[in-house]
Amino acid sequence: MEHRQEGSEAAALRSHIRTHGGNLESAMALHPEAPRPWIDLSTGINPVPYPVGPLPAETWTRLPSGAALADLMAAAAFAYGAADGAMVAAAPGTQALIQLLPRLMPARRVAVLGPTYGEHAAAWSAAGAAVATVTTVDALADADVAVVVNPNNPDGRVVAPDRLLMLSTSLARHGGRLVVDEAFADGLAGVSVVPRLDDPAARGMVVLRSFGKTYGLAGVRLGFAVADAPTAAAIRQALGPWAVPGPALTIGRAALRDGDWLAGAMARLVADAARLDGLLAAAGLTPLGGTPLFRLAEAPEGADVWFDRLARAGILTRPFDYAPTWLRFGLPGDAAAWGRLEAALRG
Amino acid sequence: MEHRQEGSEAAALRSHIRTHGGNLESAMALHPEAPRPWIDLSTGINPVPYPVGPLPAETWTRLPSGAALADLMAAAAFAYGAADGAMVAAAPGTQALIQLLPRLMPARRVAVLGPTYGEHAAAWSAAGAAVATVTTVDALADADVAVVVNPNNPDGRVVAPDRLLMLSTSLARHGGRLVVDEAFADGLAGVSVVPRLDDPAARGMVVLRSFGKTYGLAGVRLGFAVADAPTAAAIRQALGPWAVPGPALTIGRAALRDGDWLAGAMARLVADAARLDGLLAAAGLTPLGGTPLFRLAEAPEGADVWFDRLARAGILTRPFDYAPTWLRFGLPGDAAAWGRLEAALRG
Repeated sequence: MEHRQEGSEAAALRSHIRTHGGNLESAMALHPEAPRPWIDLSTGINPVPYPVGPLPAETWTRLPSGAALADLMAAAAFAYGAADGAMVAAAPGTQALIQLLPRLMPARRVAVLGPTYGEHAAAWSAAGAAVATVTTVDALADADVAVVVNPNNPDGRVVAPDRLLMLSTSLARHGGRLVVDEAFADGLAGVSVVPRLDDPAARGMVVLRSFGKTYGLAGVRLGFAVADAPTAAAIRQALGPWAVPGPALTIGRAALRDGDWLAGAMARLVADAARLDGLLAAAGLTPLGGTPLFRLAEAPEGADVWFDRLARAGILTRPFDYAPTWLRFGLPGDAAAWGRLEAALRG
Repeated sequence: MEHRQEGSEAAALRSHIRTHGGNLESAMALHPEAPRPWIDLSTGINPVPYPVGPLPAETWTRLPSGAALADLMAAAAFAYGAADGAMVAAAPGTQALIQLLPRLMPARRVAVLGPTYGEHAAAWSAAGAAVATVTTVDALADADVAVVVNPNNPDGRVVAPDRLLMLSTSLARHGGRLVVDEAFADGLAGVSVVPRLDDPAARGMVVLRSFGKTYGLAGVRLGFAVADAPTAAAIRQALGPWAVPGPALTIGRAALRDGDWLAGAMARLVADAARLDGLLAAAGLTPLGGTPLFRLAEAPEGADVWFDRLARAGILTRPFDYAPTWLRFGLPGDAAAWGRLEAALRG
């Protein structure tokens, strides 16, 4: 009895860990014996964050101003390659936009190119839509709303912007719309469809961009929808006034204009991603792709073997409920973390 | 022509100022000659904020954890007198909840006890409901959703919790629900209906609480819905994961458990509110009420006369589009601000 209860508790913790990255508390409960501090490689968040200096007192005390919000929208348009800040809606995290879109775009049939980040299907299902996960872009074309995560999480598959515009055109023929989640597109040339949003084929398309991942500031909660100006205005209207906290406004305005920081971060992330693939391959795992912020690997013997071995060493990775041989790795942030990962992979 | 253009621009700025407090940018554009720094008395935000110390790096870098959120919910339940953290949903500002409620509670006919804070009517109207502003509690009883801001903004009118429970019972007879916005209820004994939410008559009632006003941290964006546990769970579900930014979690958890700070703040606010009423009366304005965070005054000669006189002295107050003789004053935060207000009121 005691054993069965412990078993079901462990199963619940494992299920939690397979739903989202970042569940360090569940991992600690599952492996209380693991050495501390834990190294959290379960997310795709840059481990070397954009520096947050002391913030002006007004950031905390005053309601966020309209002028500051307009400037953040302009900074996001500049960073993402949109023509105009009016094409941007800023939210307290991309997740808030994922929650919101089903309420703005009534849809009966939603198709998600998958497997992918689970919150899109969850949000549309919660709103009452029938959600199909499909494996080809062509299979998206009949939906009321089609969702593409690009590059995809967890495997890094990229759908070219040209293909997305063709898809958007197909969808538009029956009033369907395309949502493109570019959470991991920062700094990847030629991947984003945002510079193409002026194209009439892109009318009604909504592109989501995440601030916290590349800039290593997931706690700030800042995300954007980029779309034609009327669509962006409708999203801003639905979010209401003061949707973005003062700290997110202050930090986002500075970071999104700091091209030097981004260039340096991308150079390091790309090199570290290659280094990580090398370590995984040397350990007998097969690299399947990913983005500069995370790598996906296949473990023919089952991901649980590796997940548990790493967890006993205080390293949290990301398994998936739908792919028992897949394990996703974020990037270690410093020499100590690289050393511990390398040692644990060697076993 | 030049003059007419300037006139319509000024009218737009005035309209903006009459919609919300805090529009310092509009005031500066309207009165560029005013001495700086401006003193913003246009909001009901405590000018002496809860101290924000340096935050742990994880507050910024990591996704907000489930354990931290649960602790914030428990802290809010403690602060507001709810039995249990499960009765709390935390959001990035009360406004986010005001935007959300119409999507969770389909309603054709909404009644708002008014005049009051304008965003309730705006959000329900945007969702397609017919919104009536009524002036008695009895007139709320037939609505699908009834909204009471308690204490009311801007006049401080209080509806007793017993009366709200009776209203909730009346509403429940035809499936109607009550929303109580307690944005300005902090520290006022006997005003809040939250401790009564266990009463069966309160089933389905949603109480909104605002963090940023009393704690002087409007930029943090933190607000709560308090309700029976199933209703609170539905709101949390609609908000989705990671809805509250890391800084709001860290600051809110500490502040909401700091009863000493709140007691000291309330003592000062109550004394300052009385002092402000005295100044207003001495200047020939009639105090109409309010809360410890703001005071409403009547100017028989028209609020614009006083608004402009104070604006020329670099002091922003809050006029109302629906009441041309009303002017609302927040509290000055230091001796210099009190001195400038007193001098400007003397004229």
